Amino acid sequence: MAGENKALWGGRFERSPERFTMEFGASLPVDRKFWREDIQGSIAHARMLGKQGIISMDDVEAIERGLLAIGERIEAGDFVFDINDEDIHMSIESQLTRDIGAAGGRLHTGRSRNDQVACDTHLYAKHLCQALAEKVLELRACLLKVAQDNMGVVMPGYTHLQLAQPVLFSHHMLAYYWMLTRDFKRILAAYDAADVLPLGSAALAGTTYPLDRDYVAQQLGFKEVSKNSLDAVSDRDYLMDLAYACSVCMIHLSRLSEELILWSTSEFRFIRMDDAYSTGSSIMPQKKNPDFAELTRGKTGRVVGDLMGILVVMKSLPLAYNKDMQEDKEGVFDAVETVCDCLHCMTGMVSTMKVNRERMREDAECGFMAATDLADYLVGKGVPFRQAHEIVGELVLKCEKMGRTLQSLSPAELAEHSSYFATDAVKAVDIDAIVARRTTAGGTGHAAVATQLEQAAQQLAADQALAAAL
Amino acid sequence: MAGENKALWGGRFERSPERFTMEFGASLPVDRKFWREDIQGSIAHARMLGKQGIISMDDVEAIERGLLAIGERIEAGDFVFDINDEDIHMSIESQLTRDIGAAGGRLHTGRSRNDQVACDTHLYAKHLCQALAEKVLELRACLLKVAQDNMGVVMPGYTHLQLAQPVLFSHHMLAYYWMLTRDFKRILAAYDAADVLPLGSAALAGTTYPLDRDYVAQQLGFKEVSKNSLDAVSDRDYLMDLAYACSVCMIHLSRLSEELILWSTSEFRFIRMDDAYSTGSSIMPQKKNPDFAELTRGKTGRVVGDLMGILVVMKSLPLAYNKDMQEDKEGVFDAVETVCDCLHCMTGMVSTMKVNRERMREDAECGFMAATDLADYLVGKGVPFRQAHEIVGELVLKCEKMGRTLQSLSPAELAEHSSYFATDAVKAVDIDAIVARRTTAGGTGHAAVATQLEQAAQQLAADQALAAAL
Amino acid sequence: MAGENKALWGGRFERSPERFTMEFGASLPVDRKFWREDIQGSIAHARMLGKQGIISMDDVEAIERGLLAIGERIEAGDFVFDINDEDIHMSIESQLTRDIGAAGGRLHTGRSRNDQVACDTHLYAKHLCQALAEKVLELRACLLKVAQDNMGVVMPGYTHLQLAQPVLFSHHMLAYYWMLTRDFKRILAAYDAADVLPLGSAALAGTTYPLDRDYVAQQLGFKEVSKNSLDAVSDRDYLMDLAYACSVCMIHLSRLSEELILWSTSEFRFIRMDDAYSTGSSIMPQKKNPDFAELTRGKTGRVVGDLMGILVVMKSLPLAYNKDMQEDKEGVFDAVETVCDCLHCMTGMVSTMKVNRERMREDAECGFMAATDLADYLVGKGVPFRQAHEIVGELVLKCEKMGRTLQSLSPAELAEHSSYFATDAVKAVDIDAIVARRTTAGGTGHAAVATQLEQAAQQLAADQALAAAL
Amino acid sequence: MAGENKALWGGRFERSPERFTMEFGASLPVDRKFWREDIQGSIAHARMLGKQGIISMDDVEAIERGLLAIGERIEAGDFVFDINDEDIHMSIESQLTRDIGAAGGRLHTGRSRNDQVACDTHLYAKHLCQALAEKVLELRACLLKVAQDNMGVVMPGYTHLQLAQPVLFSHHMLAYYWMLTRDFKRILAAYDAADVLPLGSAALAGTTYPLDRDYVAQQLGFKEVSKNSLDAVSDRDYLMDLAYACSVCMIHLSRLSEELILWSTSEFRFIRMDDAYSTGSSIMPQKKNPDFAELTRGKTGRVVGDLMGILVVMKSLPLAYNKDMQEDKEGVFDAVETVCDCLHCMTGMVSTMKVNRERMREDAECGFMAATDLADYLVGKGVPFRQAHEIVGELVLKCEKMGRTLQSLSPAELAEHSSYFATDAVKAVDIDAIVARRTTAGGTGHAAVATQLEQAAQQLAADQALAAAL
Repeated sequence: MAGENKALWGGRFERSPERFTMEFGASLPVDRKFWREDIQGSIAHARMLGKQGIISMDDVEAIERGLLAIGERIEAGDFVFDINDEDIHMSIESQLTRDIGAAGGRLHTGRSRNDQVACDTHLYAKHLCQALAEKVLELRACLLKVAQDNMGVVMPGYTHLQLAQPVLFSHHMLAYYWMLTRDFKRILAAYDAADVLPLGSAALAGTTYPLDRDYVAQQLGFKEVSKNSLDAVSDRDYLMDLAYACSVCMIHLSRLSEELILWSTSEFRFIRMDDAYSTGSSIMPQKKNPDFAELTRGKTGRVVGDLMGILVVMKSLPLAYNKDMQEDKEGVFDAVETVCDCLHCMTGMVSTMKVNRERMREDAECGFMAATDLADYLVGKGVPFRQAHEIVGELVLKCEKMGRTLQSLSPAELAEHSSYFATDAVKAVDIDAIVARRTTAGGTGHAAVATQLEQAAQQLAADQALAAAL
Repeated sequence: MAGENKALWGGRFERSPERFTMEFGASLPVDRKFWREDIQGSIAHARMLGKQGIISMDDVEAIERGLLAIGERIEAGDFVFDINDEDIHMSIESQLTRDIGAAGGRLHTGRSRNDQVACDTHLYAKHLCQALAEKVLELRACLLKVAQDNMGVVMPGYTHLQLAQPVLFSHHMLAYYWMLTRDFKRILAAYDAADVLPLGSAALAGTTYPLDRDYVAQQLGFKEVSKNSLDAVSDRDYLMDLAYACSVCMIHLSRLSEELILWSTSEFRFIRMDDAYSTGSSIMPQKKNPDFAELTRGKTGRVVGDLMGILVVMKSLPLAYNKDMQEDKEGVFDAVETVCDCLHCMTGMVSTMKVNRERMREDAECGFMAATDLADYLVGKGVPFRQAHEIVGELVLKCEKMGRTLQSLSPAELAEHSSYFATDAVKAVDIDAIVARRTTAGGTGHAAVATQLEQAAQQLAADQALAAAL
Repeated sequence: MAGENKALWGGRFERSPERFTMEFGASLPVDRKFWREDIQGSIAHARMLGKQGIISMDDVEAIERGLLAIGERIEAGDFVFDINDEDIHMSIESQLTRDIGAAGGRLHTGRSRNDQVACDTHLYAKHLCQALAEKVLELRACLLKVAQDNMGVVMPGYTHLQLAQPVLFSHHMLAYYWMLTRDFKRILAAYDAADVLPLGSAALAGTTYPLDRDYVAQQLGFKEVSKNSLDAVSDRDYLMDLAYACSVCMIHLSRLSEELILWSTSEFRFIRMDDAYSTGSSIMPQKKNPDFAELTRGKTGRVVGDLMGILVVMKSLPLAYNKDMQEDKEGVFDAVETVCDCLHCMTGMVSTMKVNRERMREDAECGFMAATDLADYLVGKGVPFRQAHEIVGELVLKCEKMGRTLQSLSPAELAEHSSYFATDAVKAVDIDAIVARRTTAGGTGHAAVATQLEQAAQQLAADQALAAAL
Repeated sequence: MAGENKALWGGRFERSPERFTMEFGASLPVDRKFWREDIQGSIAHARMLGKQGIISMDDVEAIERGLLAIGERIEAGDFVFDINDEDIHMSIESQLTRDIGAAGGRLHTGRSRNDQVACDTHLYAKHLCQALAEKVLELRACLLKVAQDNMGVVMPGYTHLQLAQPVLFSHHMLAYYWMLTRDFKRILAAYDAADVLPLGSAALAGTTYPLDRDYVAQQLGFKEVSKNSLDAVSDRDYLMDLAYACSVCMIHLSRLSEELILWSTSEFRFIRMDDAYSTGSSIMPQKKNPDFAELTRGKTGRVVGDLMGILVVMKSLPLAYNKDMQEDKEGVFDAVETVCDCLHCMTGMVSTMKVNRERMREDAECGFMAATDLADYLVGKGVPFRQAHEIVGELVLKCEKMGRTLQSLSPAELAEHSSYFATDAVKAVDIDAIVARRTTAGGTGHAAVATQLEQAAQQLAADQALAAAL
């Protein structure tokens, strides 16, 4: 068997060294993603050069027309990318010069590829943040709706994955809502970090041309211009911020995925995933593999790996631009695309899953989660804390042996166990009453959760407005 | 040799299982760091319980007095921590009960260890952010001062670590100033994420006691109260934010360290580290190992590892509290302490290093970095771009062969090479003039850098004010 | 509140710069762990110097006696470490010189701290590997015993955490046995990587003294001597190998922990953790938090973080020794200690847990996991595949509606559903029979698992012998 | 500007949910890489089914012919992959059934996609290891040749990037040779981990068909068959091993890259990269950006990120197969391809670079690196150690002030400084003599390096033989 597959690799390196190094060094397969931003940036730069009298207005017009025509061809799929052009900037600029002649060559006046690629990446990062923000908002809206639609459904609350206290299912869903609200903030912070124009920094030191950087910033919608040219061409913080925001978001999605997977098991049966988000088996009709929740959980690794990647790239790099930095894009773009997909998929899963409220309730009742409240009841009747616990502890043991739940006990049975139990004791173990009693702000009581739903709706509206204004 | 060292390990596990699991499960060695926060939080909680009439004012007074006394003993080193108490909360509470009796037991009313540890950690994280912010501001002030003190010093600017264009040393220092300014923002974001009170969430579902959470928040200086109890006890985003802010800061310090190390080499000789931040050799008087810059660079690994650690911990955890989360603190605290130390060390190194301006200038001149400007000069004289480059290219080649710099050529020698060179051509290759010509905002020209110094000073003052108000 | 806690940090940096840099630069708090190895290495070096006639045999004797005396004092806790000595080597050497005079100074002939620290760390790494190997073997022995003791217990096998096919519990336990067998191999590989003597490389270039490196290697039990002095003082591969072996082992333990946690839930109830490895609640007698399994799962993050740390440290370091490398030890040692603790804890958990075979069997029966075999039965009766599936699919649906299991159906009921079902059909759905039928090598059938138990026992014996010979 | 780019993303999700989930869930874009292995594995499986009488020999023949025909079409680029087929297994199997009818359906007897994908991935991983091993051997051969060709060239040796002691350039190159020799071992270990046949494990529990797994293993060249079906379908250790081997190899390449970049600087000028591996500037003829070394250094981040990714994927996964595991391939394959490219590129760079021996020597002499040996000379003349150091220290200081090297001093000048210096003192400072004096095994002395070259050549031949036998 040995060596049989070597052709694959041998072939790869049988290319001429020129071909190999060209492909190894080219960034085109990655940076062609931001052809739109490259054209946008070039048009803004050309207009500024014209405004400042550095090139003629005729040139500006020719350049703008030429670039827009190229954009249309790329959009239509009619543009042939050539790896010899190495990157998207050269691809477009060399075509422009072929199309409009000498004016195309003047476009690059007062800029360098170092600040051009930085500018394109900043613009593209902002667009990625917008896409991410939108997907996060969709999932938040979905979680909120599921919480609203299921108000009143009681499920077991867990710590250590052990039954702890009953909670509202809506409360549980809202916990994820708030996690994603923090993700939204992190995405905005990454947007903010990207919202600085590096163009005008030239190769590393600025340029001798009288550029108007504020004008370019305004044309391109940047909030401010970079303050130091060396920093501007070698800053990749905004990409790290983006990869980090993606990573934490995936951590959150991995937690929700884990729960969806657990809840879909035969042992929990809290939910039933929609067919569209499951894969089945031709034999076992009960089997619905929660494939997409698993895949989402798995993709957490990929995104955290992307974050690790960019951190390692930047470690120990001296100023200013180094070619290492070309490795900044692929991983970060992959992270954003992965998270967008996972958010979209999660929105689909959560909005279509069937909630099995009977099973949740059954599980909530069988776990003796009322014991705390029953002891509190006794304390309310004047029984010392320690004694109350003992009484309830023995009751629970008795129930366990008989296979009974606390809720199934009659007032008489309770009274028989301890004379402190009056007829109102049954209310103490009522699951709904237990939930309702958690009235603290942020607690699982119905009123508190209703307030929370309102807060969530308000926050969602505010954040939607913020995102729309990006 | 085999087994000789096993005693070390064997001994470790010869402890009774009880002793082993107790030590394995205990968080005391880590969480005792925030004994101050635990006491602070308990006092605020007790006052609120009193205000709400849940416990008596006498109890409140006894608790407060007791806790303060314990604090004094810890501060004085008179408090004996016992690993049997498992964590800092139990250590303090059990002592309190020994000291003041039953009232001590009532302190825990309406709270659980889950929200108590979350509260302490939030408080401590805020304090860590303050310490970090302070250290970042110190280094920024130091970089700014070095930039101010060395205005006019010219050094080579690099891309790909190849001589590219001359820049002001101040400009180079300021690049790091701005990186650290972004670090400051990230630390504030982490502070903001921590600035939410989780207390009042109880174990996971809120509590039945009529707590006034806003009052506690106000007592402890929290901006807001958490909105969902399940989220509140299992949210570790603020710690990830902190670890991430630390990681990026270390990436920046690793870059600066790399440059300090390079500049200290015999080949570069741009700076000379102070003896306090070097280690020498008894034989080679020229040898000054930049140990502390290397160590700082090395510690980047540790901090990035800490970030990865907490991300992995949180992956796939279901709601709400899980014991895995106990592993959230050690790494993050280590990250913050490491960064604080490295920032402090860097401030010391940068403020004491000797700048070798002669050597920087010499290096700036010998690299033909004036070639671009010389070609531009010819273009200004009407020579077509392509021809100008050719003329200069040949001139550079000639100089290289003769071991001459462009700056060393006389007007006559220049004119001899090409009649386009007039007497003002020597100004085109003057290193200072080349730098001065980069006038764009953010460029390395003197005026632009002067503006930048002002912007940096203003930003520093503003950020110092922000930090003081935390 | 602001600044209240600053004293903590301020105090830290109020030390004199000398004190700060000394503490920042010192490795003593970490490397004192290998004082034994330092003494071992020095004795071997001294003997070799004597043998080669480089120092006198009187010196050798004095040195050896002196070092052993110091070792006894350290062991007894009578040795005062002084941070001014910076590292363990200086601590011991300066004490030696104080104790025995000039001969102590001659010990360092022909070596440097660079190769000395490398030698100590190699030795210590080997000892860590031994400790790790031992702990892995203990857990493997424990898993094997649990598998042997529970032969015949049937549990549901899962894919996608969905009930898939019944398997033997022993088979499931053995899956982890084999994972840990691979961990053992990885630890041996790390041992092998460490088993190379670097001493004799001096600072970086070798030395002018006529050392006998092979003699030293033999004294210290090293398999070979390093072949290149530059590589020898800057190689940290063996530490990465160790951190990696630890990481994969933790990944395995995190998987087993996850299952123990799942199985301990009220919904699964497959096992009951021993009290020694659980934490309870004073109220809910049913509650047993699987704290130690959770903590083990959480510590995976820490160890993976340690691996990432050392990888980042080593990235981009030029030859030969750089101070960054001082950051190689703490994380790796922490990783090994953590894994040793987790393995020990896991052995305790697995060996003491109660297996609930009734519940496992009940779960195995209720999941229609017999459907595949029932269809196969029909195929055996000549029913075409597609039709067989249809018949069984409808039967499953019917059972589901009635809340029945396939096993509960009488021959009559089966025959009523389809005349292809003869009386032997009940055997097709018998859970034990289904398991037994999986006869392939490596399958879950009893005979196959019995063979596997033998293979596991043989492998264990072989690996125990290997470990003993390290 | 806001939202302008949203179409890109909106469009993406405007697909029907079916289309989205299909693409999200499909592994075809990744696993089509191992179509060869899938066909190989299926042929072996079919032959075994025939041999065991489970299917007819006519079926076997039809299947084999059909699969080979499909293979030819894929090779020729004539095979249309359809994302609806989800993965490579279905792509090929459904085509086979279209081509040869019912016999195609019988191919899947006694196996499941879980063990099929595991088998393909094991086979492919072995092929990847072969490709990696080959590339590592090429670079080792290249380093060895450069070391052989440059025997006698002296360069400065560094610690802390400070001039320390002169070493042979060949010695320095060989340091990397040995690092890569360890990488080779790690790749072999990954190969070994992959060299286990999982086929025959079926979905998770083994199968009821009388398979002959040993026969399949022999057909496919596997050393052994897996011992536990649950482990076999969920083991990804061999992929982690591969990603880890890649990561350490990249760490090594990042170190070499760092040095190539340093050596290419104007300040070091030790080497001149070949044009094929540099990018230039149309203006500055001296500028050669070492782009490919930088890119290689940068790609370290990507590969370490890939390792992190797979570790995170596997954390906490219960047995047996989970869909998360589909995320195991892309990152690991990317890691291997990246390392293969980087090794190939490094071989090209190192074999074509020009070594500037004059500059290396000049640098070696100007750094007072002879001071140690000069002091040793005095000790040899009977001067006490301390006094010798003092004498040399003062001499170095004097030279430094005069801008002289130790090598430039005449015997008379030396004698004037101290009467202990006789005429043979000039030999003590001779750089070649200093190097030659480092005679220890593994040292930089010529004889020691000559021995090392032989050891390296022997090891290379042995490893080439090993690789050929894989």
